Amino acid sequence: MSLVRVHNFSISLDGYGTGEGQSLDQPFGHATDRLHGWFFRTRAFRRIHGLEGGETGVDDAMANAWGDGIGAEIMGRNKFGPQRGPWQDEDWRGWWGPNPPFHTPVFVLTHHPRPSLEMEGGTTFHFIDATPEKALRQARAAAGGRDVRIGGGPSTVRAFLAADLIDHLHVVVVPIVLGRGESLWAGLEGLDQRFDSEAVSSPSGVTHLTFTRRQD
Amino acid sequence: MSLVRVHNFSISLDGYGTGEGQSLDQPFGHATDRLHGWFFRTRAFRRIHGLEGGETGVDDAMANAWGDGIGAEIMGRNKFGPQRGPWQDEDWRGWWGPNPPFHTPVFVLTHHPRPSLEMEGGTTFHFIDATPEKALRQARAAAGGRDVRIGGGPSTVRAFLAADLIDHLHVVVVPIVLGRGESLWAGLEGLDQRFDSEAVSSPSGVTHLTFTRRQD
Repeated sequence: MSLVRVHNFSISLDGYGTGEGQSLDQPFGHATDRLHGWFFRTRAFRRIHGLEGGETGVDDAMANAWGDGIGAEIMGRNKFGPQRGPWQDEDWRGWWGPNPPFHTPVFVLTHHPRPSLEMEGGTTFHFIDATPEKALRQARAAAGGRDVRIGGGPSTVRAFLAADLIDHLHVVVVPIVLGRGESLWAGLEGLDQRFDSEAVSSPSGVTHLTFTRRQD
Repeated sequence: MSLVRVHNFSISLDGYGTGEGQSLDQPFGHATDRLHGWFFRTRAFRRIHGLEGGETGVDDAMANAWGDGIGAEIMGRNKFGPQRGPWQDEDWRGWWGPNPPFHTPVFVLTHHPRPSLEMEGGTTFHFIDATPEKALRQARAAAGGRDVRIGGGPSTVRAFLAADLIDHLHVVVVPIVLGRGESLWAGLEGLDQRFDSEAVSSPSGVTHLTFTRRQD
């Protein structure tokens, strides 16, 4: 059975996966680049986005696991773009330019479906109004036996955790206090009891936590 | 100038420093021993409480910094005991038996002062109704030039952080999701900008974060 995985999901010490006030100029709201700075500096991030250079080390090694064996992604509509409610601008094709870094089918969860968008490089965005279970069924069918990545944002990852659909969760604790934003953990009391976990801190100051679903 | 220090302060992934429903039977509420299990297993903890054995390693080394150079402690009333409001039972002398592990003056913050309690081994509990600034002044005077430890619980540490009175903060992130309880971080947005931080994870699964006040 293919696995359902979350990678490189950064949170603050108070558990927020994104800041308040997301907009076109500030995709992460008042968190700006403080949650993901560790990731942007890695060689893995830069290669994913067609850039050279970047740092190596434990942050890079962890970041690099993002793509291996993935056949489809599911993301929330808030990750796809800053619009809320009915689409005002169907010309919006995501943050990532003509050749997005996914290179697989990507299922965007939205209450406002629109026609699929075929991009360069193998990425196709499908817009579906579905429960986590149904979305996962569609993504699995499209993934050709490979794993499915839940790409975020926080409320999407939380919904899949609440539905107990995640097999592998990689969370990165960044030593900042955001104070407000979207919590990853709200409503998930006792979540840890379903997983085995490991922690490794990095010289960059962040700590990588990996949660692997317990086999009963 | 003597420093103001916090040690071995355990929090969950969602930032809670203690659980809900604290009582005589459950001093940490529904968190039971999940927040402090890493500490109870160390040699440092066992020695502090007059016991032999215990584990060594990074958890023990971090735990052991608790007492060095400390001349007084300030704690919240909720750490001293489970009673709330006016004292119904003045026979209560804390959780720690006749010879508490502090061996210094201890200032207990309460809106209901009562006579000081002189215990065996050098610990004296003083009950004072004071702001963080005033309590710190009293504790410094009693500490004879040594450092002052802020002993918790979460609301007490938070009040001293909000007043910018902490020089050294050792927080231990435990990979559990408590869901409810007393948050360490509430109201402290941007706190990290006043400190330099380091992270080290332990094979036990917890991560030690140390925050050292920036020198301007």
